[in-house]
Amino acid sequence: MDIKQYLNNRRQEVEQALDELLPATKGPLAGHVEAMRYSLLAGGKRIRPILCLAAAEALPADSRPLLPVAAALECIHTYSLIHDDLPAMDDDDLRRGMPTCHKKFGEAAAILAGDGLLSFAFELLSRPLAGGNISAQEQLRLVHNLATAVGPAGMVGGQVLDIQAEGRGEQNGLNQLRLIHRCKTGALITAAVQSGAIGGGADGRQYEALTRYGEQIGLAFQIIDDLLNVTGDAATLGKAAGSDTARGKATYPALLGLDETRRQADEAVSAAIAALEIFDQHAEPLRELARYIATRKN
Amino acid sequence: MDIKQYLNNRRQEVEQALDELLPATKGPLAGHVEAMRYSLLAGGKRIRPILCLAAAEALPADSRPLLPVAAALECIHTYSLIHDDLPAMDDDDLRRGMPTCHKKFGEAAAILAGDGLLSFAFELLSRPLAGGNISAQEQLRLVHNLATAVGPAGMVGGQVLDIQAEGRGEQNGLNQLRLIHRCKTGALITAAVQSGAIGGGADGRQYEALTRYGEQIGLAFQIIDDLLNVTGDAATLGKAAGSDTARGKATYPALLGLDETRRQADEAVSAAIAALEIFDQHAEPLRELARYIATRKN
Repeated sequence: MDIKQYLNNRRQEVEQALDELLPATKGPLAGHVEAMRYSLLAGGKRIRPILCLAAAEALPADSRPLLPVAAALECIHTYSLIHDDLPAMDDDDLRRGMPTCHKKFGEAAAILAGDGLLSFAFELLSRPLAGGNISAQEQLRLVHNLATAVGPAGMVGGQVLDIQAEGRGEQNGLNQLRLIHRCKTGALITAAVQSGAIGGGADGRQYEALTRYGEQIGLAFQIIDDLLNVTGDAATLGKAAGSDTARGKATYPALLGLDETRRQADEAVSAAIAALEIFDQHAEPLRELARYIATRKN
Repeated sequence: MDIKQYLNNRRQEVEQALDELLPATKGPLAGHVEAMRYSLLAGGKRIRPILCLAAAEALPADSRPLLPVAAALECIHTYSLIHDDLPAMDDDDLRRGMPTCHKKFGEAAAILAGDGLLSFAFELLSRPLAGGNISAQEQLRLVHNLATAVGPAGMVGGQVLDIQAEGRGEQNGLNQLRLIHRCKTGALITAAVQSGAIGGGADGRQYEALTRYGEQIGLAFQIIDDLLNVTGDAATLGKAAGSDTARGKATYPALLGLDETRRQADEAVSAAIAALEIFDQHAEPLRELARYIATRKN
């Protein structure tokens, strides 16, 4: 299969859904909606929504009813980027080559754009899924799983740990680095795959396998992120390179060297693909996604 | 009935639930949990959770299975206070007589405490309700209703409008003021009552009546808030009095005068009580709550 073509098609599908689900408005809230749409529709790989859709396909199940769930995943991811970029947090001026939300709209508007996107995500997740086959009970499980993944025990907790670790560089050690990554990035990526599994009606064995896949993919994604932050260039990344080191954050390359880092990324990709053993050719997009994540340039 | 005793009992019940549902932790996230608990357990009237529980009782239904829902309402309210107090927003130093979350823990920690509480609220809302009688479908409806009430069309949108209106004082006019209040405060209060209605298994007629009650209670609550901000003293309020006027916000007293403001508050309270006509003595707590809101001092 042509993974680039697949990713392009899926990305367009997701972006169209986002555009339709959160349309521009007139009236007093026009500016608020504009700030949310600015960050939400600023490009990006749409990895999380695509993982959700591809996980459902692997079962195989029709992924179209899950588009609102996929859109919600991107709303959550975007909210986390907006808040992480704030002056009180990472204080970043650029994101995907464009001014960050607070640079463009001001700090109050950016905090509220993030808050709005997180709330809107749960609005989307709890809507009746048109054309879907999952029961309300399964949908509640999906919502609960995702809420747990983005809360104190997941993404928000990971950002807390990340900020606490800043300036302590390599003193943090590999275990601490793994914990940060597992919470900050891994939890949402794993939950994205699990959402596709639940939404597509996975049985227990399929759910377990997809969870293992999601965990390894999340790990690979983050190791490569660290690698790109060291070896990438700003134009391709759309943000400053080397910023992790400058902030005194521990990274895989700093702790392990480039060769061992690359080896661990490959290992995680292999483990992700191995986890899909029980699936047939419908899981090919997931397998190709794993390989794509290992070779991505931004 | 003795409304003070009722409120005390219910408040203790809610605070115990909050304490148990979000216990202090050791380990790397201890500080994060401490920041969330600091704001969550800093006192407060617990009006929203109590409205939820009292609405279920009015039907009549057992309100105990709804304690996690009630707790979630307070988590959402607390998150909104933490973010509203931030330097980029209202820049408040005191809340309930204590340093605001960012004054105590720093700005990044406060943003993340708010984000954590909002996420945790949806984790609570989507849990299976032990001992409850509502179907998963009804629970999903509850989640969706609440997510809509706190998002761009509700609470977050109201805060956006409030910040936009700042400094424009009485130019904003009464319609604009009503819109801000309906979104910023009214939406969550109404949704709190509706959550109790849905969670308690209300039929269509009961749900409509409780919704009207919630709308009028939300309105009365906000009018009185404006009154207290003008006429109250800092010690009772736990925050600076007169701060709305200082920020050039429009208020009911500034637009209507004290007498007419008081009259409109009484009118809203009467309308709230009238909406409960179809209910028997089990709705007494809701009726007393309406009267209490009109006479509160902080």
